[in-house]
Amino acid sequence: MAETPLYFSAADRERLEPHLPPPQSPSQSKRTDSPPLSSTLPFITLTFATSLDSALALGPGIRTALSGPQSKAMTHYLRSRHDAICVGVGTAIADDPGLNSRLADDAHVSDVVSVEDESSTRHRIITHQPRPVIIDPRLRWDFTAQSRVMRLAREGKGLAPYIVTLEREPPVHKRSILEGLGGKFIVLNAEQAHQGGSSGTHHLDWRVILSAVRQEGLGSIMIEGGAEVINSLLGENTNLVDSVIVTIAPTWLGQGGVTVSPPRTFGADRPVARLSDTMWLPLGDDIVLCGRIAR
Amino acid sequence: MAETPLYFSAADRERLEPHLPPPQSPSQSKRTDSPPLSSTLPFITLTFATSLDSALALGPGIRTALSGPQSKAMTHYLRSRHDAICVGVGTAIADDPGLNSRLADDAHVSDVVSVEDESSTRHRIITHQPRPVIIDPRLRWDFTAQSRVMRLAREGKGLAPYIVTLEREPPVHKRSILEGLGGKFIVLNAEQAHQGGSSGTHHLDWRVILSAVRQEGLGSIMIEGGAEVINSLLGENTNLVDSVIVTIAPTWLGQGGVTVSPPRTFGADRPVARLSDTMWLPLGDDIVLCGRIAR
Ligand SMILES: NC(=O)c1ccc[n+]([C@@H]2O[C@H](COP(=O)([O-])OP(=O)(O)OC[C@H]3O[C@@H](n4cnc5c(N)ncnc54)[C@H](OP(=O)(O)O)[C@@H]3O)[C@@H](O)[C@H]2O)c1
Ligand SMILES: NC(=O)c1ccc[n+]([C@@H]2O[C@H](COP(=O)([O-])OP(=O)(O)OC[C@H]3O[C@@H](n4cnc5c(N)ncnc54)[C@H](OP(=O)(O)O)[C@@H]3O)[C@@H](O)[C@H]2O)c1
Repeated sequence: MAETPLYFSAADRERLEPHLPPPQSPSQSKRTDSPPLSSTLPFITLTFATSLDSALALGPGIRTALSGPQSKAMTHYLRSRHDAICVGVGTAIADDPGLNSRLADDAHVSDVVSVEDESSTRHRIITHQPRPVIIDPRLRWDFTAQSRVMRLAREGKGLAPYIVTLEREPPVHKRSILEGLGGKFIVLNAEQAHQGGSSGTHHLDWRVILSAVRQEGLGSIMIEGGAEVINSLLGENTNLVDSVIVTIAPTWLGQGGVTVSPPRTFGADRPVARLSDTMWLPLGDDIVLCGRIAR
Repeated sequence: MAETPLYFSAADRERLEPHLPPPQSPSQSKRTDSPPLSSTLPFITLTFATSLDSALALGPGIRTALSGPQSKAMTHYLRSRHDAICVGVGTAIADDPGLNSRLADDAHVSDVVSVEDESSTRHRIITHQPRPVIIDPRLRWDFTAQSRVMRLAREGKGLAPYIVTLEREPPVHKRSILEGLGGKFIVLNAEQAHQGGSSGTHHLDWRVILSAVRQEGLGSIMIEGGAEVINSLLGENTNLVDSVIVTIAPTWLGQGGVTVSPPRTFGADRPVARLSDTMWLPLGDDIVLCGRIAR
């Protein structure tokens, strides 16, 4: 697939600005003397694209083009504005995602790098690349050197992932692929990471995951999916989320889709979450909703 | 509950206009000499309000305030612009709905009626009232003279419903309440009305329902819900729908809601329906999406 650059207008960038992390997060400013971490957690943006019936995809494993070219360009702009981009292992397995930014950057002069050595200047993609973070507690993702995110890292079009896991001894061949490209495993302490309480899930505490991400010097993270990740953040971890950006496409995928619908945290007769300070931004056929979780 | 009037701006009315039936439908023009029916079906607008997770309500029988005051006013404007307003019996039972328009009309001069006899001119609601149409094949709705729609009809604030059914002999006491207020039962012929095909549902053919509505001189109908009605129209009857107007509130109701999610008419790997000619109209915190089903 050709990695064609995507354009996102200055006017739309400006409208999104109040919903984004401050531009000068430590890793984006390229300082080599790491400043002290100002917070134990990164700035967290939850962002995803759904159909009108709240589906992320037609079904598990079915890659589904939901948003149009303009909102796709927005997603790539958002990626360029965060230090990290996070997905659950379900998405890594189902989609073989690239997790890079293909934004043709004309505004971030401070991020411009030389691409004189590229074959064509017409196709130059000059942008800050986010660090992919994949939540894979049991190392289910059977990646190879040919997985898309690894290929893009090798070609200098993105960064190799950090894989957050509970497995203390990741297989050597996986470690060598990953570390050879500049990625790594982040092994969490199982006692700390296991979510307390009586819920009985084997899920990790998001606060522990995200602190570990912050410890890597990543000051902002955009969490893109999939459904399980989003539902767990909207359901019980809304206090961690700083900004929400949802693209809605004017289509119904219909019954059987992979859907966003968080559990009823506050009981059966109360909504789970509401956004405040909302802005609706039409982009092509789609609408982009920006807001903060109302407290 | 006070029936306070609702205001909807001239600018917003103008933006909606391309998505509405032509203003001069036969019953709205108040001609007494009925013109010949120009079509066998009315103009059909599908309209409803959902959460971001596509829920119409927190659960069956839980009345859920989803949309804000401005999009509520829009709904009442839409009601004033259609000859009929339709809901399924599930909604009639769950919500005891009013199905009238409380629009404070300042633009439709031709529809102005005298309200000099009302106690207060401050509270005057001067608008075209739509005819409620309730789809109740087995007469499950146990209405009384105190049901909200009947009360409003008695008070001159709305019209009594037409109830579409298969039951040939509706109970006499129901008939007398209904007909006393100007409503009636529309009894469909079971052979004609039963949906063909092998789907095995006991559902009525929407074409037969809507032809019967048109036969009553009603040139336009807005179909408001609930979930079963909407899913059946979006799933298999999109060819009947002229216009779709969906209000989306920036909230997640969470798992267990009454949701819009049509069956996969075209197979598991294809979206059910998409809107074209879309317009997104922000109203307060909500967004209103208008469009046509893409063919
Ligand atoms: N439209 C969009 O914007 C968009 C974006 C992304 C993905 N998607 C779609 O979403 C679908 C995948 O969604 P999904 O729900 O199947 O998978 P997912 O949310 O990507 O990943 C779920 C898995 O991640 C791990 N995980 C997530 N949160 C965890 C936590 N707090 N603690 C421990 N483990 C955690 C678990 O792995 P274990 O089970 O191994 O513990 C879990 O099974 C795909 O179809 C993809 O196309 C759509
Ligand atoms: N947010 C909104 O905009 C909005 C608007 C309206 C309603 N609602 C909510 O929606 C919920 C009710 O939805 P619902 O799905 O339970 O009920 P519904 O769609 O209002 O009514 C379904 C019933 O109507 C009859 N029916 C509908 N289509 C038919 C057809 N083609 N042929 C024959 N019968 C047909 C059937 O009755 P029989 O089973 O007797 O055959 C069916 O069970 C309520 O909670 C209400 O609050 C929300």
